[in-house]
Amino acid sequence: MIRVPRCIYLAGPEVFLPNAVDVGERKKELCAKYGFVGLYPLDNELALEGVSPKEAGLRIYAANRDAMHTADLGIANLTPFRGPSADSGTVFEVGFLTALGKPVYGYTQESGHYAQRCAARGLVHRRRDDAAFDAHGMLIEDFSLEDNLMIVGGVLEHGDMVVDRTEPENYFVDLRAFEACLRAIERRIT
Amino acid sequence: MIRVPRCIYLAGPEVFLPNAVDVGERKKELCAKYGFVGLYPLDNELALEGVSPKEAGLRIYAANRDAMHTADLGIANLTPFRGPSADSGTVFEVGFLTALGKPVYGYTQESGHYAQRCAARGLVHRRRDDAAFDAHGMLIEDFSLEDNLMIVGGVLEHGDMVVDRTEPENYFVDLRAFEACLRAIERRIT
Repeated sequence: MIRVPRCIYLAGPEVFLPNAVDVGERKKELCAKYGFVGLYPLDNELALEGVSPKEAGLRIYAANRDAMHTADLGIANLTPFRGPSADSGTVFEVGFLTALGKPVYGYTQESGHYAQRCAARGLVHRRRDDAAFDAHGMLIEDFSLEDNLMIVGGVLEHGDMVVDRTEPENYFVDLRAFEACLRAIERRIT
Repeated sequence: MIRVPRCIYLAGPEVFLPNAVDVGERKKELCAKYGFVGLYPLDNELALEGVSPKEAGLRIYAANRDAMHTADLGIANLTPFRGPSADSGTVFEVGFLTALGKPVYGYTQESGHYAQRCAARGLVHRRRDDAAFDAHGMLIEDFSLEDNLMIVGGVLEHGDMVVDRTEPENYFVDLRAFEACLRAIERRIT
């Protein structure tokens, strides 16, 4: 019997790192170590020369969308990015994969719940009746979950969350939490 | 012939407003004015008493997920929320609906592209070769799109983006951009 390797879509803001390609290669090597094929957004060779920025963005979207349809599962780096929540492109992808019924394993390198992350970023403007509100008077949700309940709910529906605290300077380059997701997937499959 | 009203999932961070229920009612009344049924996350009557915060969060997730499966389309408030991007729960929902092939009409009450929004929030730490980088050295994407390319790509694939600038104090209560989405959906259907 030939075992077809499972394809894992690699979601995360690593694509914005100066060494984005290298980090993707390391992630794909780790996938291979566990018998999987990693699909990294920067794998796509797109002809974008002479194309408008908007058209280039939409072509990258289409390539990532197609990769998600190819993938059997996803691993998403949900470490907070430019705010208390995960990178918004990654969050879109978690929603997309979840709707397709594909398991997503999410990891975060910052411990603490969403409400604690908001507090740590000075976003709590007022507290009343044990609830916290931001400067616009909007409630800061507190369900003891790592991020907005839709994200964690989607991850937990078909996959799992891995929390592995790392120093901020290593947030998107330290791959221990990523490898923990691979081990979780391996345990699930075998 | 009986015309079955289309159901529209109403995504956005309005659920965190102090008058969240009122704003939802106003959105649903506007939907009715155009012959649609609005599905608002707070419509769900969930028995959450005595339930742990985590379990409560996961039940709300499940109810919203079911509402998205019921919906024919979505309207999403993608105005920046606690950072340069849209509310993360809303973004998850845009990804989810897009994967199901359901059109999402996204609106934003802040004009300008993602790179401009990052600059306006002081997130640009360094510029080089026309590219901008944040304090962690990560590239700030600039595709002349209102948010991360996955979000706008998903919206434009089946629906459309509406940009209608509003003063920040009216970001989540002014419903003109929301109504513009309803008119766009009406034009599409009739």
